[in-house]
Amino acid sequence: MTKENVQGAGEEEQQAQSKKALKKQQKEAEKAAKKAEKQAKLATEQQEADEDDFAKDRYGICPMVQSQQKLDRALVRVQDLTPEKAEQQIWVRARIHTSRAKGKQCFLVLRHQQSTVQALIAVGDRASKQMVKFAANLTKESIIDVEAVVKKVEQKIESCSQQDVELHVERIFVISQSEARLPLQLEDAVRPEGEGDEEGRATVNQDTRLDNRVIDLRTTTSQAIFRLQSGVCQLFRDTLINKGFVEIQTPKIISAASEGGANVFTVSYFKTSAYLAQSPQLYKQMCICADFDKVFCVGPVFRAEDSNTHRHLTEFVGLDIEMAFNYHYHEVIDSITDTMVQIFKGLRDRFQTEIQTVNKQYPSEPFKFLEPTLRLEYKEGVAMLRAAGVEMGDEEDLSTPNEKLLGRLVKEKYDTDFYVLDKYPLAVRPFYTMPDPNNPKYSNSYDMFMRGEEILSGAQRVHDAQLLTERAMHHGIDLEKIKAYIDSFRYGAPPHAGGGIGLERVTMLYLGLHNVRQTSMFPRDPKRLTP
Amino acid sequence: MTKENVQGAGEEEQQAQSKKALKKQQKEAEKAAKKAEKQAKLATEQQEADEDDFAKDRYGICPMVQSQQKLDRALVRVQDLTPEKAEQQIWVRARIHTSRAKGKQCFLVLRHQQSTVQALIAVGDRASKQMVKFAANLTKESIIDVEAVVKKVEQKIESCSQQDVELHVERIFVISQSEARLPLQLEDAVRPEGEGDEEGRATVNQDTRLDNRVIDLRTTTSQAIFRLQSGVCQLFRDTLINKGFVEIQTPKIISAASEGGANVFTVSYFKTSAYLAQSPQLYKQMCICADFDKVFCVGPVFRAEDSNTHRHLTEFVGLDIEMAFNYHYHEVIDSITDTMVQIFKGLRDRFQTEIQTVNKQYPSEPFKFLEPTLRLEYKEGVAMLRAAGVEMGDEEDLSTPNEKLLGRLVKEKYDTDFYVLDKYPLAVRPFYTMPDPNNPKYSNSYDMFMRGEEILSGAQRVHDAQLLTERAMHHGIDLEKIKAYIDSFRYGAPPHAGGGIGLERVTMLYLGLHNVRQTSMFPRDPKRLTP
Repeated sequence: MTKENVQGAGEEEQQAQSKKALKKQQKEAEKAAKKAEKQAKLATEQQEADEDDFAKDRYGICPMVQSQQKLDRALVRVQDLTPEKAEQQIWVRARIHTSRAKGKQCFLVLRHQQSTVQALIAVGDRASKQMVKFAANLTKESIIDVEAVVKKVEQKIESCSQQDVELHVERIFVISQSEARLPLQLEDAVRPEGEGDEEGRATVNQDTRLDNRVIDLRTTTSQAIFRLQSGVCQLFRDTLINKGFVEIQTPKIISAASEGGANVFTVSYFKTSAYLAQSPQLYKQMCICADFDKVFCVGPVFRAEDSNTHRHLTEFVGLDIEMAFNYHYHEVIDSITDTMVQIFKGLRDRFQTEIQTVNKQYPSEPFKFLEPTLRLEYKEGVAMLRAAGVEMGDEEDLSTPNEKLLGRLVKEKYDTDFYVLDKYPLAVRPFYTMPDPNNPKYSNSYDMFMRGEEILSGAQRVHDAQLLTERAMHHGIDLEKIKAYIDSFRYGAPPHAGGGIGLERVTMLYLGLHNVRQTSMFPRDPKRLTP
Repeated sequence: MTKENVQGAGEEEQQAQSKKALKKQQKEAEKAAKKAEKQAKLATEQQEADEDDFAKDRYGICPMVQSQQKLDRALVRVQDLTPEKAEQQIWVRARIHTSRAKGKQCFLVLRHQQSTVQALIAVGDRASKQMVKFAANLTKESIIDVEAVVKKVEQKIESCSQQDVELHVERIFVISQSEARLPLQLEDAVRPEGEGDEEGRATVNQDTRLDNRVIDLRTTTSQAIFRLQSGVCQLFRDTLINKGFVEIQTPKIISAASEGGANVFTVSYFKTSAYLAQSPQLYKQMCICADFDKVFCVGPVFRAEDSNTHRHLTEFVGLDIEMAFNYHYHEVIDSITDTMVQIFKGLRDRFQTEIQTVNKQYPSEPFKFLEPTLRLEYKEGVAMLRAAGVEMGDEEDLSTPNEKLLGRLVKEKYDTDFYVLDKYPLAVRPFYTMPDPNNPKYSNSYDMFMRGEEILSGAQRVHDAQLLTERAMHHGIDLEKIKAYIDSFRYGAPPHAGGGIGLERVTMLYLGLHNVRQTSMFPRDPKRLTP
């Protein structure tokens, strides 16, 4: 059988495989065959034991669900198991979170997403000794279907999310078995940092988590983080669509490195080579030149920076905005800050469960913001830092520690975790940034900060082909490579501004987390490409 | 000035530039300087002429909008210019769509997005001869601000979208000038195919359009197409979020070519190399294994296929769905078809203007669909094709012509442009497709079609690590490369199914267009990487 399979593979692919790989595969196949044999043997044994078991039809391992039948059976979700359902006979599908056998009883905690419930299987007229033993032997993380009666409990079950009821199990079937040995324990993975140390219990380090992301993502904390992140995207888009924005899709494979050529990934593209877009910048501006007026996009951006910090990824999700304005780029700042405020409010009002869940493992202060959003000029920021003892030049960019310090100073003075720093020095911004008309050392550009870290960088853009050419040359950019971009401005272009937001940073900083890898499902950095 | 700029450029970048490029840049700069000089001269001339012009403050070229001031002036949108505004004095910002001088008058058609309005500037007490001449000389596609009185007209202006009013212009200022020579004419670009031939008028070929996409996207047709496409995305997500789906973000840079290694783009990744994801398939399945239950994502997918057809792109936008089900994968088919139906209804109800606009240039029949969606088995499709004279084997895949023919046969018989073909032969589907439990030659997989072309491919997936290993080996896939993927199923995995939809195809086929490049803003194919 194994051999046949290997021989059945496409000839080309087969030739491409090294002999070593082939050997490995044969070995794998042998292993799989042995395992199958072992399982068959176990099944036979079980069948024999079953023969004198009155409950033998009430438990067991289901054949793999291959859509054999359309079963007309409603499944109740764990989160919906409340006292209103008391005495009802229901079916539930869930994972075995924990299992504890105790004499003739077996207590299971069943888990589905952020919810858990206690389930009891006890020897009696609905369960045999064999059935309780079967339940007790099930591996953690297996998915089971149970038929049970919902029972109110006298004393709250503190260890479960569903504290007022438990399930009295009458049937139990395995839908999908987990291997016995888990690469990490879920209870370790949700333990608050520090707490483990005191009690001599384990916590799980970041690489173990990321190497076994499928399991790490099952924790209540991860479930909450990524549900909330889905909410950030939804609130971002809904707010902008209400404001008349159009969603656009911009190409990620581009012919020229847009911003000077550093930090860009190269792709082989048929007989030539191309690059991965470092931002949708140029394309969203082209959409403005093409009269879409207000556009946004949500998509991956790629940075080939060899930075191994808590807040840098080589691939992250950009929430990008570009908008034509009438007379002043502050019209755009107001649109963006209002969008951020709508996101903050939406998260606060709709995702309180998720926020609480994350806070249990990673405590943080609630996120504070003002209406309207605080806007400071760069000069003011520098003055605040100098007053706090920092030495820095007028046209010097903010270092990360200074950024954070300024965040603390702003929080102290204005009581907000979100603010805009406006009018950056021209020298520290990209070539397409519009210079300040009143002071050539400054520019019509801005960053936005959450809890003292940058989440958005934006500016009024140069919409005049001639000035853009001058600015590109000043930055030493090869004009030939950005010809299509500059040409976009030759046929009438409205004044416009915009910005790009890092999704993972917004989620991280809103929740007061400390590493962007916690808010990227499958993070990419210079050292990580898997899973 | 020019020299200084070049010397001011970063040393590293300067060294990287070839001498040739430097020369080119100097030439560009000289050209720009000459142009600036010429413009300055023209401005001086105009100023001199202005001196005996009573209307000299009523027109002119504005300084570049650099956010010099926050002007408290409301701008009325062209689409809002209706008879209710008659006799009001208003400001409008728009492009000059066409211009026609006639004695002491100048007629302009002003355009903003899908809307146009006629504007009249006539010599009188609000406009001088010089002012009318100034207006008449403005280049098409320039953006202007006009102050005007809205006037009802006796006879409908057939050539404009705003047919009941015109503007009597009292002030006119240029915000952004277009170069005089346009690479394509907008009126040519919206002419229905065929119509040009008869009247000896030009139409614009696809490459010219795409090479000058910023202008081509300004046409009413393009504006309508991409507004509607934004609607497809929004309807897709809103429907799924209402169904309890979570939006996920999956990595595009991956360590191993997921589906056998063909047709994949290679990226250089620091000291190693990586690939661009051909689909989010493996990641959305991992999310299912991680208990998210119902997930979707919208993002770019990459295919290094050297196909130059009307419906293939090397980069397109995937609308991807993955969903755990209880007992039968038809639960998932029902969710997807309902989502498609919600999209069709939403487009029909909310985007009628856009549909009409596109139909003017590209006539097509309204898109028809049934509720519930028609679902045929592959066998039935083959039988229908055979009855129509096609010779094909039971386990043979559908060719593109047969796909289209089947679409026509289905339309004739069932009067629908949308249907599902279920239970494809196992042999023509990817390794992770669940075999049909009742017939090993078939599988629990399906495609969905719009107007006879495939828009979605999907299936129940194998959720058992052992069967998955066997299937991968059968397909000759190197197990080592998909280890992380297979391992995801070792710790309990719910049965699940899903599918991936091509956004550009949905837009194309819904609107009855004939090339996917019309529904991709900046299409990528083996021959096109720019703009």
